[in-house]
Amino acid sequence: MTEVVIAGIGQTEVGEHWEISLRDLALDAIQAALKDADAGGIKPQALFVGNMLAPNLSGQAHLGALIADYAGLTGIEAVTLEAAGASGGAALRQGYLAVASGMVDAALVVGVEKFTDKIGAVVDEALATTSDSDFEAVQGMNPTAQAALLMKRYMFENNVPADGFANFALTAHTNGVANKNAMFRKAIKPETYHKADMVSDPINMFDVAPNADGAAALVLTRRELLPSNWHASRPLVKIAGSAASSDTLALHDRKDILYFDTAQISAGKAMKQAGIILDQIDFFEYHDAFSIFAALSLEAVGFAIKGKGWKLAAENEIGLKGKIPCATMGGMKARGFPGGAAGVYQAVEAVTQLRGQAGANQIAGATYGLIQSLGGPASTAVSHILQRADD
Amino acid sequence: MTEVVIAGIGQTEVGEHWEISLRDLALDAIQAALKDADAGGIKPQALFVGNMLAPNLSGQAHLGALIADYAGLTGIEAVTLEAAGASGGAALRQGYLAVASGMVDAALVVGVEKFTDKIGAVVDEALATTSDSDFEAVQGMNPTAQAALLMKRYMFENNVPADGFANFALTAHTNGVANKNAMFRKAIKPETYHKADMVSDPINMFDVAPNADGAAALVLTRRELLPSNWHASRPLVKIAGSAASSDTLALHDRKDILYFDTAQISAGKAMKQAGIILDQIDFFEYHDAFSIFAALSLEAVGFAIKGKGWKLAAENEIGLKGKIPCATMGGMKARGFPGGAAGVYQAVEAVTQLRGQAGANQIAGATYGLIQSLGGPASTAVSHILQRADD
Repeated sequence: MTEVVIAGIGQTEVGEHWEISLRDLALDAIQAALKDADAGGIKPQALFVGNMLAPNLSGQAHLGALIADYAGLTGIEAVTLEAAGASGGAALRQGYLAVASGMVDAALVVGVEKFTDKIGAVVDEALATTSDSDFEAVQGMNPTAQAALLMKRYMFENNVPADGFANFALTAHTNGVANKNAMFRKAIKPETYHKADMVSDPINMFDVAPNADGAAALVLTRRELLPSNWHASRPLVKIAGSAASSDTLALHDRKDILYFDTAQISAGKAMKQAGIILDQIDFFEYHDAFSIFAALSLEAVGFAIKGKGWKLAAENEIGLKGKIPCATMGGMKARGFPGGAAGVYQAVEAVTQLRGQAGANQIAGATYGLIQSLGGPASTAVSHILQRADD
Repeated sequence: MTEVVIAGIGQTEVGEHWEISLRDLALDAIQAALKDADAGGIKPQALFVGNMLAPNLSGQAHLGALIADYAGLTGIEAVTLEAAGASGGAALRQGYLAVASGMVDAALVVGVEKFTDKIGAVVDEALATTSDSDFEAVQGMNPTAQAALLMKRYMFENNVPADGFANFALTAHTNGVANKNAMFRKAIKPETYHKADMVSDPINMFDVAPNADGAAALVLTRRELLPSNWHASRPLVKIAGSAASSDTLALHDRKDILYFDTAQISAGKAMKQAGIILDQIDFFEYHDAFSIFAALSLEAVGFAIKGKGWKLAAENEIGLKGKIPCATMGGMKARGFPGGAAGVYQAVEAVTQLRGQAGANQIAGATYGLIQSLGGPASTAVSHILQRADD
């Protein structure tokens, strides 16, 4: 099998970029990624854009051609991938397939989202398009209310105490402190979590990730196309496994609403492709848009048995020195949730870890990282295993 | 190189389907394509959805998971591809890359659009998201007005007489008569074209394709995975060439607004991959959303020299018995323009021709067909060469 590597990474700060346009955010991330890949004469032949809501929030579709042109890459192949919150992961997956096919030698993957192009109810309406419009959105359901129902049921079924989910937020915010691109860089205390305002009971302010602007980019190519002396001192990171799976949009159609089938299926396939078992994974960038998603992801992937994902967090096993470090650069809660860019940020952060460039947040000797991008309540899951290629 | 074949095709009638939902349209096309592929135990592992405007028109994003589930394929990989009017071509291209990569054995490609979910100015606003929102849409530019400016300039530069474009519409409507899935099935006379109301001078009612609802689907797989006795009596159709290219969204950034660079680049690459020259192409399904697009496409691909595409039509060379038959099943003008489904309809129609199933519209001995899906004024172009595989 061809080895597809991530030869360059780039990202903007995540936050409220009122003064920066969607295309400028994308440009910044792309330029950073191309600079990071540097030398080796890598010329992207294709651009895969992950975006979730620009047709509604920014009045702008057709981002592929728009961004390719704006980045000075006029003429290359370019397309937008959309799978709600998993749009970033989906863009990485399609970039991977294109390069693996041999039809494209080098591809740019960019995730970009600009929430601050709109404010108020329009944003809620836009987010509601990611759920089932005929059966959920039309009833007034929105993603946060839906996650609240999931969390409430989970707490009831599994006897989770009040504040049982606190450590998902505490860990994320602890890890965000040293990430200069994170939206929030201040650790929070248990009492801060305890006193936080409710957003949609039982989801408090720290159980939901903040919508934010941002862009992240990757340069993909095949290993054999890199010059032999390319960045000799920097570990090369390859995509060892890639898989995606889909489920119902509407929760009422599921046999078990408290199990993320797609997270299990896609992670299992990616691990199989990589030829590794769960124990070999050194860190897990989960899709912690909501704390309940993080708990259910830990269970679906197999790090915890059903109903005990929250406990893994409560026992401090998701911290940087825990059994399975998660959200190592702050995750969606502290780094922020830039919609269709989120899945690409995960990849950028995982590459940073695998290269040993994660500074204060470095997982010693990290060799395998699992990143997982979810759309809706795991209606889409895209999983990738990234590997430090020492050989 | 692996041979990727189109093992099944399906389509709904194109028209105003007020009573059929987006997901039901997609389901109809998918079921028809799976039935057409039949036997051989083809089980799709991935779904690629081409859609242009559902987040705006239907209040529904995340179509990949939605449609996969609705089609009874819950669990498979699923994603939406968007590149304005080229969304259908882009979905075919990504399906092709996935199957060619060896990572996916069989893929479904479905294009779907539901214009009648909204009426009035909202539709115009949605369509305007496909052009450059910051530099064109904000000025009130919409795709039809933009095409009118292009056509006017073209007529001035090339001394095109009034009614010089008539044959693009006449040919399309003649070919639509025998296509039971076409929106309009009545031939028009030169005087009907001449008397037609102006939409945006010089574009009259017949120079612009009607927005319409519809869905079309394809089953892709690798040739070696088909059973040896599979549909023995029916010619197999393979994807011999596939390529895409992008250009500026905004026309003011182009060196020559009257040349479709992307149409030239993508068609050239696809022909090179297929190992054929222009003379070997038996028919051309161009993107005749506007008559001027058809003329410029004929020139960019090389069937006419610059400024003479209109003349090829005027001289009746684009008819079923002409030098290069175009819009053989009615094209976008008579079959209708179902947005992100249009590029997939082209593929369905080309397969119909290459199998020899085109009835009254059959191009005798058709071996190679070029299909080309455009987004905006060729800001995106996706070209495929489909080939009857007799060997």
